[in-house]
Amino acid sequence: METISENRAFGGTQGVYTHASAETGTEMQFSLFMPDHEPGATLPVLWYLSGLTCTHANVTEKGEFRSACAEHGIAFVAPDTSPRGDDVPDDEGYDFGQGAGFYVDATEKPWAKHFRMRSYIEEELPALITAKFPMLDMARQSITGHSMGGHGALTIALRNPGRFRSVSAFAPIVSPLNCPWGEKALAGYLGPDRAAWRPYDACALIEDGARVPEILVDQGEADQFLEEQLKPELLEQACAGGGIALTLNRQPGYDHSYYFISTFMADHIGWHAKRLA
Amino acid sequence: METISENRAFGGTQGVYTHASAETGTEMQFSLFMPDHEPGATLPVLWYLSGLTCTHANVTEKGEFRSACAEHGIAFVAPDTSPRGDDVPDDEGYDFGQGAGFYVDATEKPWAKHFRMRSYIEEELPALITAKFPMLDMARQSITGHSMGGHGALTIALRNPGRFRSVSAFAPIVSPLNCPWGEKALAGYLGPDRAAWRPYDACALIEDGARVPEILVDQGEADQFLEEQLKPELLEQACAGGGIALTLNRQPGYDHSYYFISTFMADHIGWHAKRLA
Repeated sequence: METISENRAFGGTQGVYTHASAETGTEMQFSLFMPDHEPGATLPVLWYLSGLTCTHANVTEKGEFRSACAEHGIAFVAPDTSPRGDDVPDDEGYDFGQGAGFYVDATEKPWAKHFRMRSYIEEELPALITAKFPMLDMARQSITGHSMGGHGALTIALRNPGRFRSVSAFAPIVSPLNCPWGEKALAGYLGPDRAAWRPYDACALIEDGARVPEILVDQGEADQFLEEQLKPELLEQACAGGGIALTLNRQPGYDHSYYFISTFMADHIGWHAKRLA
Repeated sequence: METISENRAFGGTQGVYTHASAETGTEMQFSLFMPDHEPGATLPVLWYLSGLTCTHANVTEKGEFRSACAEHGIAFVAPDTSPRGDDVPDDEGYDFGQGAGFYVDATEKPWAKHFRMRSYIEEELPALITAKFPMLDMARQSITGHSMGGHGALTIALRNPGRFRSVSAFAPIVSPLNCPWGEKALAGYLGPDRAAWRPYDACALIEDGARVPEILVDQGEADQFLEEQLKPELLEQACAGGGIALTLNRQPGYDHSYYFISTFMADHIGWHAKRLA
């Protein structure tokens, strides 16, 4: 693993790192904010999964998470959203291919070789990060994300019960089975059998028995993708059916941008901090 | 004046606007964060002048000012750093021409026609903003900036005694007469007579009798431009000679980036808020 940059910020270190990934077969970058800490101390970890078109850089530059992470002593990890490179297949659309990995392990050609973001995020990257940064305490981790990354956070938490102390999301895609973004991506990566999509759909996972105790979601009411793509009411129905305590904050006037995310970032970090204590 | 974008953020509106400028002869863009307020209320204003290569967008995306501005009820205005466009002269260097206006009224050809950032910031833009946003109370304004914009904030405050309640800066160029950036820019915009540069040099202005009661500066000790370009010790000497209360916070480990600026932004806004109350 190599260091691309480290900048002092908010009484900690904002790093960007790169490493060869066995899962994706590419170089992968991620960012990590590490608050200052006593020698020998361990820190809880908050994972942040980004949305369509994003890299680690969007939230790292615009997410306004460092102040709250420093206050609560939480490390903040932001991976990329897909493999990238000239050798990696891509699509003309912004919502499929590079920048749009949807946190799946693809099974369809030509995607299956590189698009293994599920295994990368669930298995490979945690192991690499723990080896490189042994002060991170993976017994105390939580996960959040935005839009496609909210989908990632919810599905990863639901598929791995007990791994995360808490899960939240900003404007998540709650049911790829039921929106154009999801249908395009999952059909492309996984093929036409919709049964194979269900492990990558938070609502379907809950219908099929997966559980987390509680979920926090913030959703802008002026989000341009609210009605066609995001459909938080589907998550409300699934959580009601599954006995999951969903806190869904509908925020009047807020859109899908980092202006929305950054506004509520400190609230989410504080909420996770209580569960990571 | 036209609206480019308005996004809800931190209980207010982050806007970006464009207008024709009589001073620069170009379209000019700026951003304005307006906290929510009661009808009929007036708000104090904090000006933020940006550094080399920047537009309004850098601080708007990375500055992390909205939380503190919303808390204190302060509007935040971020202008561009120069005229721009195909008809505007430019230079191959990042430190002269477009993106590097140095907040001067140029007198040399070919710059004099468009590079009138002093008059634009001091006269034209405040009048336009006040007309468009009458809730802004220009009797309560303060000014800050970064690097070249810190130079702009200091020199504008010193040349306009009484106009600003307070002035601060992040890693400012304190004496363009005594650094390569400043000597290149002022020679280019103003010609070889160094006497003509003194109204654009904070230290020279103080030596020549200009006064503000106090100045707040934060400066990263790992700033890559500290020794050759920024030289805060020159401002310390000038303020000591002029009886100006300078608070110079040297911040170990911090560099010249927005990771540094955003870390100390809330401190500066809180400091200005006390003086704008």
